[in-house]
Amino acid sequence: MTKLQNDIFLRACKRKNVEYTPIWIMRQAGRYLPEYRAVRKKADFLTMCKTPELAAEVTIQPVDLIGVDAAIIFSDILVIPEAMGMHLEMIESKGPRLYNAIRSINDVNNLKQVDAVKDLKYVLDAVSLTKKELNGRVPLIGFAGSPWTLMTYMVEGGGSKNFAEIKKFIYNQPKAAHLLLDKISSSVAEYLSAKIEAGADAVQIFDTWGGLLSPADFQEFSLNYIEKVISKIKRKGQPVIVFAKGVHYQLDKLAESGANVIGLDWTMELGKVRSKIGNKVAIQGNLDPTVLYGSKEKIREEAVKVLKSFGKNNGHIFNLGHGILPDVPPENAKFLVDTVKEESRRFHGKK
Amino acid sequence: MTKLQNDIFLRACKRKNVEYTPIWIMRQAGRYLPEYRAVRKKADFLTMCKTPELAAEVTIQPVDLIGVDAAIIFSDILVIPEAMGMHLEMIESKGPRLYNAIRSINDVNNLKQVDAVKDLKYVLDAVSLTKKELNGRVPLIGFAGSPWTLMTYMVEGGGSKNFAEIKKFIYNQPKAAHLLLDKISSSVAEYLSAKIEAGADAVQIFDTWGGLLSPADFQEFSLNYIEKVISKIKRKGQPVIVFAKGVHYQLDKLAESGANVIGLDWTMELGKVRSKIGNKVAIQGNLDPTVLYGSKEKIREEAVKVLKSFGKNNGHIFNLGHGILPDVPPENAKFLVDTVKEESRRFHGKK
Repeated sequence: MTKLQNDIFLRACKRKNVEYTPIWIMRQAGRYLPEYRAVRKKADFLTMCKTPELAAEVTIQPVDLIGVDAAIIFSDILVIPEAMGMHLEMIESKGPRLYNAIRSINDVNNLKQVDAVKDLKYVLDAVSLTKKELNGRVPLIGFAGSPWTLMTYMVEGGGSKNFAEIKKFIYNQPKAAHLLLDKISSSVAEYLSAKIEAGADAVQIFDTWGGLLSPADFQEFSLNYIEKVISKIKRKGQPVIVFAKGVHYQLDKLAESGANVIGLDWTMELGKVRSKIGNKVAIQGNLDPTVLYGSKEKIREEAVKVLKSFGKNNGHIFNLGHGILPDVPPENAKFLVDTVKEESRRFHGKK
Repeated sequence: MTKLQNDIFLRACKRKNVEYTPIWIMRQAGRYLPEYRAVRKKADFLTMCKTPELAAEVTIQPVDLIGVDAAIIFSDILVIPEAMGMHLEMIESKGPRLYNAIRSINDVNNLKQVDAVKDLKYVLDAVSLTKKELNGRVPLIGFAGSPWTLMTYMVEGGGSKNFAEIKKFIYNQPKAAHLLLDKISSSVAEYLSAKIEAGADAVQIFDTWGGLLSPADFQEFSLNYIEKVISKIKRKGQPVIVFAKGVHYQLDKLAESGANVIGLDWTMELGKVRSKIGNKVAIQGNLDPTVLYGSKEKIREEAVKVLKSFGKNNGHIFNLGHGILPDVPPENAKFLVDTVKEESRRFHGKK
């Protein structure tokens, strides 16, 4: 393996000394970049995911254009339900559709276990190719949806407003729900292990819909399975990041899930969370993504607030509190990256 | 005024002794009731709001059918922007549209101050008529949107996915935003005062979109104006309830806003919040609305969890953590009301 020239992101994940606070941006390989839209013109979203050359190209774009300290492989969390046998379509401006939504224990039994090396070879090829093309410039992050978030899509058949179907499913068919969560957990663990084997330097688990649940339900239907996944990932020191959007409770338990890094959305105060969960794990986040609509002055002001809130300490990875929005000016994203690298230096070094 | 036969809701708002935990349900006058849908067939949503006889009829339905301890006047928070001069339409299955969205200080200056007695006479007439028809059976709640939530609709021109426009507005035109919030605050305070004058026994402020904001922005753009509204409401002991969905931070500050009751969504633990904010205010909430999709057994189990979480103490009003969903079986709503009245008795009385 090529030695990493910039490993500051990995050092921060492990709460080691850094010169500045590393930064990457959720959805950094995305529609706000004209260079991404140019590739997207040639191929639809899923074709991009399934063509390693295209996936590698857009994965590397923000490293070149924005200057982030880590790349994240371009893909989608719903490749797992697809590999489990569901028919997936991405409908322009409407979002994903998973046909024949899961509604019974029979449906669950009919899903197959994912063999990542066979069923998701295209992702692993994209990881290997990206690693080669990155040539050690920055680390590469692999990712997956949490079992709860994937189950939500599989039962709803796509996005949802009220999440009625998934809630009916867990309340009225808890056995089927737990069986499905178990099945997804094994697939996710095997998938993330394969990504690491293919070269990913870290992995992130996205629990996009964890915040829909009451604290007790979050424990039962989401956190338990995140823990299961983490315990099963085959890794040699590669950090695991868990981002559970809207989950403002049980952060102490999340910090004990086996994750090395907890990602926080912009409604949390980093300093308060840090003093609550202590220095067990690193923290990633959490600028309000819409601040990037503001002036450069505003972006600097708010970025410094985030840095100050975390304070002088190891273990902070700067990020937005959710994905970058598609109509953000790319120069604002670049300005944020430059600003964080510059302003954060005074929070590191001699204390 | 007719004396109230059932004032348990008002006593709980003031943290006085009660025999059982009173209960009402957000959106209790709504689509899940066949009797509501029958009225809705005769008139569109806004016509219902503007016809006191129809508004009174659907307001009283859940008192008769479900047995709640308070009625809440049937209306919509967007009647205020309409009264300020915006053109409002409710588009079937798409939600509200406010035309010529506010995007500049000129737009703000062109809005008029609401004269509730003149501009919103139909709501006040609905309140008086409902009070008369309720004939003292239960108290009547009036409501309004918070200034921040109303501004969000006025700037977005309706609902939104990413709330890009409102965030651009507050970050790039903060002066215009504060001017608009001031203007809305006066209108809301005057409107709620008029509702009380017309007979409302309590009022609730809905901050539906408070949870979109970072803690600092919530303070600046929402909480400050909620406080302003509360301080200006003319009342003689009528309690004020504030429900700020998704606001899990600064609950201590919300408790000092002048509100008598804080409404919580289902991601909060009542017991934890109570021990944090002390006994300054009463707490309303917070069963996950989707639990009503479950079996009766499940509904009882989860309702008891909520009661236990609050514990043996005065100052709890049972409610859902958000509005009741349109496809919930009405018998499940009635079962919840009966269950809370029955199960909560052991949390009151001699301690």
